[in-house]
Amino acid sequence: MNEALERLKLDALLVTHAVNVRYLCGFTGSNAALLASPRRTMLFTDGRYTEQANAEAQHVRVTISRGALLPEAVKAIQRHRIASTGIEAEHMSAAARVGFKRLLPKRARLRDTFAVVEHLRQIKEPAEITALRESVIAGARLFDTALEAIRPGVREIGVAAEMEYSARRAGAEGMSFDTIVAAGRRSALPHGRASSAPIPARGFVVLDWGVKLSGYCSDETRTVHVGTPDAETRGQYNAVRESQQAAVEAIRPGATAGDVDRAARNALQRTGFARYFTHSTGHGVGLEIHESPRVAQNQPDPLRPGMVITVEPGVYIPNRGGVRIEDMVVVTATGCEVLTPTSKQLITL
Amino acid sequence: MNEALERLKLDALLVTHAVNVRYLCGFTGSNAALLASPRRTMLFTDGRYTEQANAEAQHVRVTISRGALLPEAVKAIQRHRIASTGIEAEHMSAAARVGFKRLLPKRARLRDTFAVVEHLRQIKEPAEITALRESVIAGARLFDTALEAIRPGVREIGVAAEMEYSARRAGAEGMSFDTIVAAGRRSALPHGRASSAPIPARGFVVLDWGVKLSGYCSDETRTVHVGTPDAETRGQYNAVRESQQAAVEAIRPGATAGDVDRAARNALQRTGFARYFTHSTGHGVGLEIHESPRVAQNQPDPLRPGMVITVEPGVYIPNRGGVRIEDMVVVTATGCEVLTPTSKQLITL
Repeated sequence: MNEALERLKLDALLVTHAVNVRYLCGFTGSNAALLASPRRTMLFTDGRYTEQANAEAQHVRVTISRGALLPEAVKAIQRHRIASTGIEAEHMSAAARVGFKRLLPKRARLRDTFAVVEHLRQIKEPAEITALRESVIAGARLFDTALEAIRPGVREIGVAAEMEYSARRAGAEGMSFDTIVAAGRRSALPHGRASSAPIPARGFVVLDWGVKLSGYCSDETRTVHVGTPDAETRGQYNAVRESQQAAVEAIRPGATAGDVDRAARNALQRTGFARYFTHSTGHGVGLEIHESPRVAQNQPDPLRPGMVITVEPGVYIPNRGGVRIEDMVVVTATGCEVLTPTSKQLITL
Repeated sequence: MNEALERLKLDALLVTHAVNVRYLCGFTGSNAALLASPRRTMLFTDGRYTEQANAEAQHVRVTISRGALLPEAVKAIQRHRIASTGIEAEHMSAAARVGFKRLLPKRARLRDTFAVVEHLRQIKEPAEITALRESVIAGARLFDTALEAIRPGVREIGVAAEMEYSARRAGAEGMSFDTIVAAGRRSALPHGRASSAPIPARGFVVLDWGVKLSGYCSDETRTVHVGTPDAETRGQYNAVRESQQAAVEAIRPGATAGDVDRAARNALQRTGFARYFTHSTGHGVGLEIHESPRVAQNQPDPLRPGMVITVEPGVYIPNRGGVRIEDMVVVTATGCEVLTPTSKQLITL
């Protein structure tokens, strides 16, 4: 953080995005602001979190505010004569920025910053990779739960309910996003959150889910088939599987996120399904389900060891059905490691 | 909406807060912007939501964008010669505002607006009250689930898991917030999300939960006691119950939100517990779990028929335990109606 402040020529950064606050000091309360400077880091929260802040927050001075947090941060800026403060322009609302600026003494400078902490968060530390590994394993266990629950006539949300129940019983803090269970024609909707529609007698079921464990998100997609698939259906599945494999094989330090996306797309070009792949190939994942880097067309960011990304190409044929396969992958010093342990064989139920 | 635009002397409002988009047109996708003007309302979303937007969105023209949404909104502003556009300053980031302003033609005016749609959302229409009623009933059913699950040694998250599973099986889209199960000393934490701590042999258990049904949130708190409570413990419970009742009795059109808060606090003053009531009395609830009005000290907003608020005083004695009781209440033409059907007798398990 100090390096980042130096590079930006800032004396302090006011961190207001809750997950960035957590990353920097460990505090998990929902109302928090953190003022980070080379000399000291101060955490501001309210009376609901007094005990929790003292228990969780590391290497910070905690201030409990009776009202809004930003006025307290301004007092600290005045008291410590901080000349220039950056804000997280993507996370502070336009309204809050106006209010904050109005409170600041005239000589104090304010500057918009972009993704400063997110940039640090891209490279996961060993303890974070351990946490992600545990989250991925806990998430992967839910696939068995889903396989037991899926049968014609059961509602999509019934399957999601079983998965979420298993997750909670296994100690997950929750799901990392609304569980997607999209069956039959609905499997052609790339974002088909579990609905009350029943699973039909025949067709694909796309399952896309993740759990949160110690704050870290898992993200996995598998597609199964209810009833015996015909040759065309198998072809669609295998095309996605090959595309996913090709993308994984493109991951290594120095390759760009765009290279990985292109590998997925080229594989689908060869099998003729490329026009049905309507989203990007993946995204970083960590404390949030969507983090940098974006794994999308022409993304020039070079992959670096410690990045954790998803690889999730899909083929969605309107009014027929869709297939998506997604793993989480960590970039290593020499290549990559697929964290997701689940088989990618086509399972027929 | 047209009245609001007229009052603000604006030709259009750019709505970017997802729940406000949903309120105005019914579209539930996660990536959306809505440009509302007296002549026409336009919805912008991306290719993932083509089918969903056409199915859900009412009385709007849908534009599917291949990239970011704000440039599409700017094109519409140019095409329809919209002279002045409001943005939701509390929901647009400082960074997005700068980007949007840069795209706008020079002669187009941009103005920050505050809570325009939220103001409309405060007064629930009959169909919304019906939806909230159904959500409250579905939520209240989970109390029985919790009572069956609570026993010494069971983890707090185990209780939460049972509640969430029941909710999903009953067709809820999810919980309206992270379920709070705070047992024993942890009950003194006003925001004690369910943890892996076991329920002790003796003490209060605060349960605060809600479900989402058709987008509308329920919010309820009950406190039970494990083991036989002594006189002091009963006194603490009864003080909260009386405070909660006093606050409910203060609700009627024309009373202010501050009056309701004061009624809760005055009752606790009489029993000597007021200093342990460390948060505000309640909040509006609807498509979001926290909406206007705030029911807090000195809030001057008059209550109006159709508002739906929570009433949830609590008494938290550090290192001993806490009690909170919360109902959802709709303001009627002549007074109010408590929506939450659950008993407030002290239940001993």
